[in-house]
Amino acid sequence: MAIDIVIKEVAPRDGLQAQSVEITHAQRAALIEALVRANLPELEIGSFVSPKAVPQMAGTDRLAADLPAGNSIFSALVPNMKGYELGRRAGLNQLAIVVSATEQMNQNNIRMSLADTFLMADDILRRAQQESIEVHAYLAVAFECPYEGKVSEKKVIEQARALMKSAPARLVIADTIGAANPFAVKSLMKQLVSEFGTEVLGCHFHDTRAMGLANVYAAIESDIRYFDSSAGGLGGCPFAPGAKGNVATEDVVMLCQSAGLDTGIDLQALLEAVALLTEVIGTAQGGRTHGWLKDNWQKLG
Amino acid sequence: MAIDIVIKEVAPRDGLQAQSVEITHAQRAALIEALVRANLPELEIGSFVSPKAVPQMAGTDRLAADLPAGNSIFSALVPNMKGYELGRRAGLNQLAIVVSATEQMNQNNIRMSLADTFLMADDILRRAQQESIEVHAYLAVAFECPYEGKVSEKKVIEQARALMKSAPARLVIADTIGAANPFAVKSLMKQLVSEFGTEVLGCHFHDTRAMGLANVYAAIESDIRYFDSSAGGLGGCPFAPGAKGNVATEDVVMLCQSAGLDTGIDLQALLEAVALLTEVIGTAQGGRTHGWLKDNWQKLG
Repeated sequence: MAIDIVIKEVAPRDGLQAQSVEITHAQRAALIEALVRANLPELEIGSFVSPKAVPQMAGTDRLAADLPAGNSIFSALVPNMKGYELGRRAGLNQLAIVVSATEQMNQNNIRMSLADTFLMADDILRRAQQESIEVHAYLAVAFECPYEGKVSEKKVIEQARALMKSAPARLVIADTIGAANPFAVKSLMKQLVSEFGTEVLGCHFHDTRAMGLANVYAAIESDIRYFDSSAGGLGGCPFAPGAKGNVATEDVVMLCQSAGLDTGIDLQALLEAVALLTEVIGTAQGGRTHGWLKDNWQKLG
Repeated sequence: MAIDIVIKEVAPRDGLQAQSVEITHAQRAALIEALVRANLPELEIGSFVSPKAVPQMAGTDRLAADLPAGNSIFSALVPNMKGYELGRRAGLNQLAIVVSATEQMNQNNIRMSLADTFLMADDILRRAQQESIEVHAYLAVAFECPYEGKVSEKKVIEQARALMKSAPARLVIADTIGAANPFAVKSLMKQLVSEFGTEVLGCHFHDTRAMGLANVYAAIESDIRYFDSSAGGLGGCPFAPGAKGNVATEDVVMLCQSAGLDTGIDLQALLEAVALLTEVIGTAQGGRTHGWLKDNWQKLG
């Protein structure tokens, strides 16, 4: 069966990296297993960043060495060429790199200038093509930056053009701090789809201002068919003040199902993964609709 | 300054009627005062229903007799001709009547058949025109009924046509149990706007499945410019199992402001009204975005 909307699950990376409680290797592995059981088509298992900067993500290589069987494509975030090499050596065929739309966010996130970050992205993307590694390029803080404020649509389109010259497997527009609104999403994504086609594009939304689902809907209306989301709405960015949880995978699945759009995801198994997150984190996890969904998921078509 | 999006605030009616704690007359009056200070353009102060069925709404006539000065147009819900007469006698120039899209919901809500409910609505609407009372007709459970399940778009359009023959001041499509999705909202509202124009239409959404804001956005994209909402997301329907809170007024205001659409509402004063609700109800009230909004409302344009 063809999937209408492809979801990359990011709870094991964007979700867990934002937690202050200690998460063990076994707990990370169990979460990945639970998400594979839920049939997530793509799954970001962690990142290859400095364990000093993000200690929660140390040992992602060990996770990559022992991945469960299933239908999920596994991926990891890499901050630079060294990370790319680590990810590739760990056996992952899909990786993600991040360039931020603003100078200050690049400085705070990866301690590089905007110009140098784009050069580095180009290096990694060209090498990835030679080595047949699928690299997704993320354009972060694409709507608003916690340091520089609103980011103009014109600037983002120019940066998207620059990144597309390096031929990423996918260009993902990321609203890192959850400041986008559906009107802005539709305007931007329609232009990008018309210029680059939907196949190479995706969106990554946070739900800080409760507009996550409205933004996903606006992107679907703009013909976007690829989304990042996080089971239980877990998430945040340690270097972006104010970044709250990602849009919840179960909320996105519900939105899609309500319109007859298939995600291929097993909602019951996904809710079990959210229950596991609650156990691991120690506080109740769940997306905006969790209270309703956990008692009513059978009612969805 | 012209308002782009008109909001009818329904917390004093749809919100308070759903509460199990006792709310005093003075508390209801204080809430109305706080909402008038927030400059809500329209404000449903209560309903003229049997105090046996909905004891929380007893004494709406006394509220109507002592309304605060301000810019708000005051309104009340009336279930039948007797309620219409009580509302008119109380001095209100705007009233709302409800017909449900399904047989069973009419039976459970007002103990009348679907056919009789439409006849009653016609009687009230014709009389209201003679008496220059602005009556809004609500088509309830217009997407899904808690008893009969999904309601077809075709049926709703036929019912809308039937109601429009009686010339209501406004026809409000109500998703009483929060089961709508933005795809369905856009499809239905676009057809209704093209047939009847936007001036006479409105939408009333509940946020049960966290799609409230996405639905408001989809309706705005369909040229709807009139919405019901409830401060703090308070709400529900005592006769519709599963009906949770209305879409929160502060969430709708934030969505509109993010797109430069003016609601005329004072967001700071609105958040003070939500704080008052927290005090009155005894538990924390607030829309989906409340956690973010209460610390960041000044940042909105």
